[in-house]
Amino acid sequence: MPIYKAPLRDMRFVAFEVFKAEEVWAANPAFAEVDRDLVDAILEESARFNEEVIFPLNRSGDEEGCRVEGDTVRTPAGFREAFRQYAEGGWIGLGADVKYGGQGLPKMVTAMTDEILFGCNPSFALYPLLGIGAALAMSQHADEALNETYLPKIYSGEWSGTMCLTEPHAGTDLGIIRTRAEPQADNSYLITGTKIFITGGEHDLTDNIIHLVLAKLPGAPSGSKGISLFLVPKFLVNADGSLGERNAVHVGSIEHKMGIKASATCVMNFDGARGWLVGEPNEGLAAMFVMMNYERLSMGLQGLGASEVAYQNAAAYARDRLQGRSATGAQCPEKAADPLLVHPDIRRMLLTVRAHNEAARCFAMYVSQALDASKYGVSETDRQKGRDLVALLTPVAKAFLSDRGFDACVMAQQVLGGHGYIREWGMEQLVRDTRIAQIYEGTNGVQAMDLAGRKVVRNQGAYVRLYLEEVRSLLASLQSIPELSAFSHSLTEAVQCLEEATNLLLQQAAADAQAINAAAVDYLHLFGLVSYAHMWTMMARAAVSRRGTDAYYQHKLELGQYFMQRMLPEIDTRLAAIKSGPAAMMQFPAEYF
Amino acid sequence: MPIYKAPLRDMRFVAFEVFKAEEVWAANPAFAEVDRDLVDAILEESARFNEEVIFPLNRSGDEEGCRVEGDTVRTPAGFREAFRQYAEGGWIGLGADVKYGGQGLPKMVTAMTDEILFGCNPSFALYPLLGIGAALAMSQHADEALNETYLPKIYSGEWSGTMCLTEPHAGTDLGIIRTRAEPQADNSYLITGTKIFITGGEHDLTDNIIHLVLAKLPGAPSGSKGISLFLVPKFLVNADGSLGERNAVHVGSIEHKMGIKASATCVMNFDGARGWLVGEPNEGLAAMFVMMNYERLSMGLQGLGASEVAYQNAAAYARDRLQGRSATGAQCPEKAADPLLVHPDIRRMLLTVRAHNEAARCFAMYVSQALDASKYGVSETDRQKGRDLVALLTPVAKAFLSDRGFDACVMAQQVLGGHGYIREWGMEQLVRDTRIAQIYEGTNGVQAMDLAGRKVVRNQGAYVRLYLEEVRSLLASLQSIPELSAFSHSLTEAVQCLEEATNLLLQQAAADAQAINAAAVDYLHLFGLVSYAHMWTMMARAAVSRRGTDAYYQHKLELGQYFMQRMLPEIDTRLAAIKSGPAAMMQFPAEYF
Repeated sequence: MPIYKAPLRDMRFVAFEVFKAEEVWAANPAFAEVDRDLVDAILEESARFNEEVIFPLNRSGDEEGCRVEGDTVRTPAGFREAFRQYAEGGWIGLGADVKYGGQGLPKMVTAMTDEILFGCNPSFALYPLLGIGAALAMSQHADEALNETYLPKIYSGEWSGTMCLTEPHAGTDLGIIRTRAEPQADNSYLITGTKIFITGGEHDLTDNIIHLVLAKLPGAPSGSKGISLFLVPKFLVNADGSLGERNAVHVGSIEHKMGIKASATCVMNFDGARGWLVGEPNEGLAAMFVMMNYERLSMGLQGLGASEVAYQNAAAYARDRLQGRSATGAQCPEKAADPLLVHPDIRRMLLTVRAHNEAARCFAMYVSQALDASKYGVSETDRQKGRDLVALLTPVAKAFLSDRGFDACVMAQQVLGGHGYIREWGMEQLVRDTRIAQIYEGTNGVQAMDLAGRKVVRNQGAYVRLYLEEVRSLLASLQSIPELSAFSHSLTEAVQCLEEATNLLLQQAAADAQAINAAAVDYLHLFGLVSYAHMWTMMARAAVSRRGTDAYYQHKLELGQYFMQRMLPEIDTRLAAIKSGPAAMMQFPAEYF
Repeated sequence: MPIYKAPLRDMRFVAFEVFKAEEVWAANPAFAEVDRDLVDAILEESARFNEEVIFPLNRSGDEEGCRVEGDTVRTPAGFREAFRQYAEGGWIGLGADVKYGGQGLPKMVTAMTDEILFGCNPSFALYPLLGIGAALAMSQHADEALNETYLPKIYSGEWSGTMCLTEPHAGTDLGIIRTRAEPQADNSYLITGTKIFITGGEHDLTDNIIHLVLAKLPGAPSGSKGISLFLVPKFLVNADGSLGERNAVHVGSIEHKMGIKASATCVMNFDGARGWLVGEPNEGLAAMFVMMNYERLSMGLQGLGASEVAYQNAAAYARDRLQGRSATGAQCPEKAADPLLVHPDIRRMLLTVRAHNEAARCFAMYVSQALDASKYGVSETDRQKGRDLVALLTPVAKAFLSDRGFDACVMAQQVLGGHGYIREWGMEQLVRDTRIAQIYEGTNGVQAMDLAGRKVVRNQGAYVRLYLEEVRSLLASLQSIPELSAFSHSLTEAVQCLEEATNLLLQQAAADAQAINAAAVDYLHLFGLVSYAHMWTMMARAAVSRRGTDAYYQHKLELGQYFMQRMLPEIDTRLAAIKSGPAAMMQFPAEYF
């Protein structure tokens, strides 16, 4: 059975030493109640609860899966009780609006608890996560009456939420959905249509399930400008907040999937189900994107959580497993063989995974800080900068962390050899479960186009320049720290590469409408690698002065150099791919494929 | 349900236009019976049989899996009948020694039929494959009486074979196995021990199962120099060839795995089972390596077969699925959306997979030609050159084709978005099934160390120089073909990079015992990429004069350029990683991990 210990030491280093979270919070009235003691207590309890209660259900949940029973979906043994405990612990509302019963903690805290939860059990994590995302979209777009009725129940875990976007013929392209909404005299709507891939569309964890559904009003414009958002509860809610009659929304079936088998992925049939408009007519997609953006950072954290678990299990195996001898002579002559750890190639795999994990954790915190600034910044300038950075970095956080998290799980699985392929060791489940994070909430290709198109080309690189100012100010601060000259050198080269790629992308896009799409994925990976170099340099700066006090800091610097020397050079390969331009793909006629 | 059509056009191009197989065979008395008509007929029948009979069992076999029933293992429905037909079709002995009932066809033919078989059903493929490998090891090491008794029955498919190496504590490190062999008065041995991960260790497809087992004789030297190889049949064989009493070898359990679920992966208990020595005492590992090397090319073909299926299904989906609009304006205005194929990023994924597949197919043929030369070459010079190239290229063929085949399956899965994650589409099974090819028959890390250590450093780069002579002679032939100057330029740079990496590896290895292991995987991937550049240039040379006759040839040249521009530049990243040297891994103390 796999092991897991929440990486609290590393989280504290990132939060308090790299980002100086205490100072950030002390300077912001919105976080007057937040201090290090509180956050330490939250992290300790998150670690304890998830390690003891949620993590053991990950393997059993995968083996048992979900099943349709009549009109509901039965989750695996233990999920219902664990969800109750999770809700009672206040975890669902941890980062939510205090007005609706949330605890109002910054994203810089919930990013850490999300990583722990996703590491322990991604299938379980999706049930509360979807509710939080739905509530977030509502809190910014729904009218007050709806919010007061629904949000406290979602944050308390009595009810849960879903996002109903995809239809059999419409996934990425939501402009062509067919689900329709008929206005009724009482200001409600009757929703009719079929939605697929609905995570937590039906389950037995909560008394009610609140669906946020994209649908089209009569006479709505075609395409994505004619989509509205509706709230459709499984059970109608009476005026006193009690549950009323069953609504006409039912699970048709559940999908049989590669992984996250304990998460119910449902076909949902809306047969004139009663719903209420959220936000303005025909502006549903904008409202849904509030939710999507929230989920997107979480999908990155899913990748990170999994690769942290993968690292810990691969490292434990490499320490224990005796196989072969060190090339420099037996290290454990009293035993039949040396531990796997004596072999450089085993270390290469472990260090590559770990260098990813630690950079990803830092990057998630960087994006979280920007998210907090966008929402709670003390000046409009702060908030605008936060919004711009969030817009730029969210697709990177979603796609790069999930792509590299998947690769890291595969690499960690390799450390176990044949045992990595056997179910009981849990490594293959990590690979299967993490694969979905590259696909859902907008495939990583879609994330890359969002980055290259909407976030770079549309504003002619303005967000990138804003980001590069941040990096350059870090570089300027390094001039007084000669021990970090190697970091400074690598990061400077990386920044130049990102600038070159950005300028190239802008030039290509001006000349050819296909250029953004052709360059997007390589540009996103290049951007992610440069951001990791940025994160490693930030961590190095925080570590360098303490390296005499604790080997932890010295090893931070060493792992950072490992990243710079062995992983960062991939940016040149990505740049070369971008240079080849769209003609390399478009010259082939359709019948070639 | 997934689709598959054997890529016969591309196979014929590689065999007959790139490698001019007819001329090769005509010049070799061993292949006097082999001509194009025969091989065409074999390919057609292989395609028909595998597409119609073997491929449909791939999904159902995955769903049903294997199960232990008493003393045997029940394979999924349809496997038994399909195996009977496969055997009766003569496929098991296709490349086998005519003396024992085989058909003696060159590897240049069976590499193609192996790709088709592995593409259609890797679980099924393993049952005959293990028998063929076992028979091959026997034919080169066992005494004539054993061979006459066993080999014809294996080639006819009446019996099957296994390789029993791994024990619970001994995988890569076979030197520490504990299974022991006690000599008996009648020249037989009693074998006692437990073997794990035994593919096809027990099943219901054949009347007898012939195990090749590594074990230690009393007083044998410790380590890998004290290992002997034994033949242990499930049923003892009477003097007249009929089956006698049940031997004391039994399945303990089967593994629950990530994939290849229709392949029975068994724990085998040998409780004083009667066996016979194959080859010389204490030289079992050498005999087993005959089998291992045969399997290793096959594992590369497994990766290629899967990524070909993955390509075909992703391309079909991209043609059919309507989603979004071309950036240059609607291509199918009469429909709700354009096909996925209008998007450059979709094409990027398809072309990357396809550029891998076509290079891999060519490389497998290149290695097969060397294998044929090593065995049937008309002069000892030819045979020696063949052996040297096979020694050098086998680890590349195994590891690079399986690593890139896995990546290709993941990339093709991504084309299908959410549907790629759903079992019924079959893409996720390709990913799960292909993952094992990176692990078994020696992990890809072990392959890389074999390449960098035994095949490069041990002979101070002699095999690499031999290979580079081949590449340089191709480059020389291009000087008269100005249309191929871009290929020539890219390949020249690639060759320089491989030389630089090889020299660097030799220098590092002279200075540090850890250097080989530290550089190995990056060196192997660099080598593989350079070999693919070599293959693409060979294909371009064969295609260039015919490009006016058929778009097939023009597209070959274009896809080759796609590889050179977008995929080959990774060699620089790999070289940078090698440059960082072993200290980057070894500086961390064991407790760090």
